[in-house]
Amino acid sequence: MSTYMTRLEDRIRLRGTSALVGLDPRWDQLPSEIRNGNEAPEPGQIAKAFCRFCCEIVDIVSPLVPAVKPQVAFFEQLGPTGIAALHQIMEYARQQQLIVIADAKRGDIGSTAAGYADAWLDGTSSKAAFPSDALTVNPYLGDDTLQPFVETAVRRNAGIYVLVRTSNPGAGAFQNRRTGNTTVFEAVADTVQELNVIHRGDSQWGPVGAVVGATWPQEMAALRARMPNTPFLVPGYGSQGGTAADVAAAFGPCHGGALINSSRAINFAWRRPKWKDQFGEENWRDAVRASTQEMIADLDSI
Amino acid sequence: MSTYMTRLEDRIRLRGTSALVGLDPRWDQLPSEIRNGNEAPEPGQIAKAFCRFCCEIVDIVSPLVPAVKPQVAFFEQLGPTGIAALHQIMEYARQQQLIVIADAKRGDIGSTAAGYADAWLDGTSSKAAFPSDALTVNPYLGDDTLQPFVETAVRRNAGIYVLVRTSNPGAGAFQNRRTGNTTVFEAVADTVQELNVIHRGDSQWGPVGAVVGATWPQEMAALRARMPNTPFLVPGYGSQGGTAADVAAAFGPCHGGALINSSRAINFAWRRPKWKDQFGEENWRDAVRASTQEMIADLDSI
Repeated sequence: MSTYMTRLEDRIRLRGTSALVGLDPRWDQLPSEIRNGNEAPEPGQIAKAFCRFCCEIVDIVSPLVPAVKPQVAFFEQLGPTGIAALHQIMEYARQQQLIVIADAKRGDIGSTAAGYADAWLDGTSSKAAFPSDALTVNPYLGDDTLQPFVETAVRRNAGIYVLVRTSNPGAGAFQNRRTGNTTVFEAVADTVQELNVIHRGDSQWGPVGAVVGATWPQEMAALRARMPNTPFLVPGYGSQGGTAADVAAAFGPCHGGALINSSRAINFAWRRPKWKDQFGEENWRDAVRASTQEMIADLDSI
Repeated sequence: MSTYMTRLEDRIRLRGTSALVGLDPRWDQLPSEIRNGNEAPEPGQIAKAFCRFCCEIVDIVSPLVPAVKPQVAFFEQLGPTGIAALHQIMEYARQQQLIVIADAKRGDIGSTAAGYADAWLDGTSSKAAFPSDALTVNPYLGDDTLQPFVETAVRRNAGIYVLVRTSNPGAGAFQNRRTGNTTVFEAVADTVQELNVIHRGDSQWGPVGAVVGATWPQEMAALRARMPNTPFLVPGYGSQGGTAADVAAAFGPCHGGALINSSRAINFAWRRPKWKDQFGEENWRDAVRASTQEMIADLDSI
């Protein structure tokens, strides 16, 4: 059975891009065709619309990109029916040969962390509640709380992405605090890299990724150097302002070891002035395809 | 409509205790009566057993304590069917006059954080996907990411508990890092306290609580002094080794402003040698009641 990073790098090579498409459905931004004139929808109706919308996006992007990243919050917002829709979308995306990264930012202690890991790290095991290849993980509770995630990931050929340097404006409030010369996010980075040294075997890349925001380009190269065996997941490209130049340093040798994410700019591409004029709302699928291709071309220029 | 802390303090006064019962179901530890001889259960069967077990615990503890804290991880482990069971248990607990604190440790940026807040902070609004009075929140992503949770909590008379100092052995790995004289967890504490100064109005307690582990008693009094308007949620009592003496400093004036949590020691009380001998597995309900009463008496001794 192949490791998470073997499967991911295979898909990246096959598609020729490291573009990652986030699935971030929001009711009030869906095309009216999908909202179907419903003004006061029940959670179950929204969940069905999310399912249809995300599966259509999967259809459009699956020939183009290696992976998708559903944002769990928007499904939790609908309660149990939303979680059922999320499960269907994840399953469908895997059937369409996409790697699925659950963006749930889970984190807890001991056996509770093991519970989250069991829930969200399927890999090649068919044992998890949710069919994900990888999961985003929050390190605040401590290095010992990463262990259950790492163990489950290794056992099931899954991956995790630990939040190191997030893309939001206030990311530094706690992440930038410094002991001697080492900030909190650098300490997290060192922990992540150490875990990969232990678990990567003969591979360049271990199973423990790092989330590093595109909005801090001045730190990207230093973090890449600090974590030579750590795959990166880079949010903040596109809608949040990160450019191809900002993310260039995220890559390792031969353009490997990084996924660059775009969510809103692709999901709701037809709402952007540029594509709205060209396609109009009724052709929202073409706008999704065009904006994905635009991102791929942009990353290709690195 | 009453604020979260008004409702909680009313329940604490009515029950005469600050004991909080965690709901942490684990299949292999359930009484055999609840497992019903099932050796290879499907997720749906486990979910039904969790629902029955937790609702029975609610029946036992609702006349005794003010609040319960379901651990979301153990329900996520079962996928959509587990989340549906969690929803039922939360609803049932509120019907039984318990305050419900969802222990989900959510955290994300901007509109995604707003999504989690919308999902888990019901308060008195009847608008959330899950019927919770409060939610645990992870601050790693930064002070700006707490804002959507605080805004939703204020609007809906709900509460949040921000992880400040967790109870696990490795909690200090990142939380203890220091800038000048201020550790990361103290910086989080200061942020939390500032939010309460803004939002508490005329009340002693604001809507932004702090999770402070009972396993670090030497820091408890200092954190209480640092956050005079912040309600505490204290894990680590009981199974994790915290004693009544360790948690005494968590309280504010007149024994207010803190909830002390016990999960496993109550949920699986009949497995502890003491209660097993006295009651036996068939009388697991009596063991749950006895261990809850034991905790209440222990906290009463403070």
